[in-house]
Amino acid sequence: MATYADQQAEITEHQSLPTLHWIGDVDGSLAIIDQTRLPLELVEIELTDVDALWEAISTLRVRGAPAIGLAAGYGVVLGVRGAAEGDEADLMARLRKVVEYLAASRPTAVNLSWALARQVRAAKKLAGRPPREIVAGLLAEAHAMYEEDRVMCRAIGRHGAELLADGTGVLTHCNAGALVTADYGTALGVIFAARAAGKRLHVYVDETRPLLQGARLTAWELVQAGIPATLICDSMAASVMREGRIQAVIVGADRIAANGDTANKIGTYQVALCAAAHDIPFYVAAPSSTFDLSIASGAEIPIEQRQAREITHGFGRQTAPTGIDVYNPAFDVTPARVIRAIICEHGVIDPVNAEQIAKVVGTLRVP
Amino acid sequence: MATYADQQAEITEHQSLPTLHWIGDVDGSLAIIDQTRLPLELVEIELTDVDALWEAISTLRVRGAPAIGLAAGYGVVLGVRGAAEGDEADLMARLRKVVEYLAASRPTAVNLSWALARQVRAAKKLAGRPPREIVAGLLAEAHAMYEEDRVMCRAIGRHGAELLADGTGVLTHCNAGALVTADYGTALGVIFAARAAGKRLHVYVDETRPLLQGARLTAWELVQAGIPATLICDSMAASVMREGRIQAVIVGADRIAANGDTANKIGTYQVALCAAAHDIPFYVAAPSSTFDLSIASGAEIPIEQRQAREITHGFGRQTAPTGIDVYNPAFDVTPARVIRAIICEHGVIDPVNAEQIAKVVGTLRVP
Repeated sequence: MATYADQQAEITEHQSLPTLHWIGDVDGSLAIIDQTRLPLELVEIELTDVDALWEAISTLRVRGAPAIGLAAGYGVVLGVRGAAEGDEADLMARLRKVVEYLAASRPTAVNLSWALARQVRAAKKLAGRPPREIVAGLLAEAHAMYEEDRVMCRAIGRHGAELLADGTGVLTHCNAGALVTADYGTALGVIFAARAAGKRLHVYVDETRPLLQGARLTAWELVQAGIPATLICDSMAASVMREGRIQAVIVGADRIAANGDTANKIGTYQVALCAAAHDIPFYVAAPSSTFDLSIASGAEIPIEQRQAREITHGFGRQTAPTGIDVYNPAFDVTPARVIRAIICEHGVIDPVNAEQIAKVVGTLRVP
Repeated sequence: MATYADQQAEITEHQSLPTLHWIGDVDGSLAIIDQTRLPLELVEIELTDVDALWEAISTLRVRGAPAIGLAAGYGVVLGVRGAAEGDEADLMARLRKVVEYLAASRPTAVNLSWALARQVRAAKKLAGRPPREIVAGLLAEAHAMYEEDRVMCRAIGRHGAELLADGTGVLTHCNAGALVTADYGTALGVIFAARAAGKRLHVYVDETRPLLQGARLTAWELVQAGIPATLICDSMAASVMREGRIQAVIVGADRIAANGDTANKIGTYQVALCAAAHDIPFYVAAPSSTFDLSIASGAEIPIEQRQAREITHGFGRQTAPTGIDVYNPAFDVTPARVIRAIICEHGVIDPVNAEQIAKVVGTLRVP
């Protein structure tokens, strides 16, 4: 097995600008690509306080389960550093408030609460040290999560690439690429890794209404990377499958229950049903931090409901009649039975069931 | 069985403005609702020549299989009336050119070629009469098709309403309502008829990317009619089914092959697969003019490909990166095996297969 150092050594720059990165020391700021302005403008913004970070997560300027976990890790630093000169009790009280606040920015992705829990544990380990050292420790922990995320992406890419044969047509939904991780992504990471291994692929990209993460972000990443890709509307996925264009589907995840039921962007469940109807393997690529082993099945995953305007006023203008009722869940749950395998940094979970997940993820997961 | 007069008598105004209607005599014009301006503006435009009509069909100002058939019927009058003062040979030559021209305005809906063929037969029956009488005869034939369409809608509504129980959640895709017919529609006609019969329904409306006929048109018709309705993105259909909100799916059709394979708006096939996976009946509502008994299966139906800009610039601004490849089929084909029944003006075709279709449609169809 490759050592951590080996894995580090193989990581090279994937895109010119990382989706997020910390600038400076504990008094610094978190720079993020404002994903709401893609694909027309590649703009980096600097977040200097926790309110700005909360707004950036909730409006999807920074989005995708791994990235919002990383952002939240740094967000804790932004939120507590004002207490670095006070006493430890004040700092810890502020930490609890900041963690509660950030946890509510988006409810479905478990990586968010996973990262916040890691920061709480990191602070507890430093109990008794001067507050400024605790804050520095929290920044170090955020950096550690960031570095681990880079290694994780490459490991997922390596494991997943083996599942894609040369000449495969791959369909993906939403965006699980470099924009949602510290490196080249999860679902897209598998595609990038397969390409790097010399495999010819053609990627079909669901536009992913309502917020068009597929059209705006995945298509942008693939064009940047020079990978042959075709944009389709979400309603066309079954047709391109029936036409024989797709041999594999690969998506990311926001939360995976102990039995393998997977919450991901709304529409994922529908794609999985269509893949099953055409006997096409449906893969989920996600780090172990996406697993929530505290819940038995997908029925327990909270589904974020978003504003009607995302549907009725898609992109700056009204496209539905005034007065129409709207239902806008941000996620859905794909049952384990239609998932062929889950690719995580520790390997490929196949078949997808509670035992196999416990075997691969349960014992290895950093608590 | 109700007589034609009975059926006529039951027709009352459904919406304040019909989707299309002829104004005046043979020198008159065709008024249409410009559907591209809904739901924000209800604007009627007058078409006075065949080029304007061709443009209106190809840009979907007038759309939906029955309506484009009716529009084409009147379009023949617009196209040939300039030859009303010449000799018969000139008129017939012009008729052939106009028919060929209009047939190419949209390739998938068979009602278009059906209406044009009716006009050719009508002209042939009048052979030997003065050209101005032939033109008048063509206008009379267009009016006849219009009146038959009104009766057809009510018959479909009556047959279909029996399939919907009180309290049903119904999902529909695209728009097959008053905007596509001379009366209250096909798929929506069934819903309107069930409501008129006192049944409580809740309609889920797929927004229907790329051109949003569900969000713009079906939602508008349902709000106007005061029927409880909820707008969703196309990617949410499977989720609302899984949540138990849907007990029936009903859609229109653009062409139905002899075996029941049905071409309809892109995304219909996907909805049908999702309905099958949830054991929800999937119904098609369409007049007998939608059947193309000359083709054995859906494999022979031509699928119109539309411009990439409908997807990349869908909402008035660019939402996908420059350089991305796009696939934009306007229709897909739903195989007969996932269609529970087809509702036409002559009754309910169940099961959906070649024998049953021949029995209900084959012998009754006006040649």
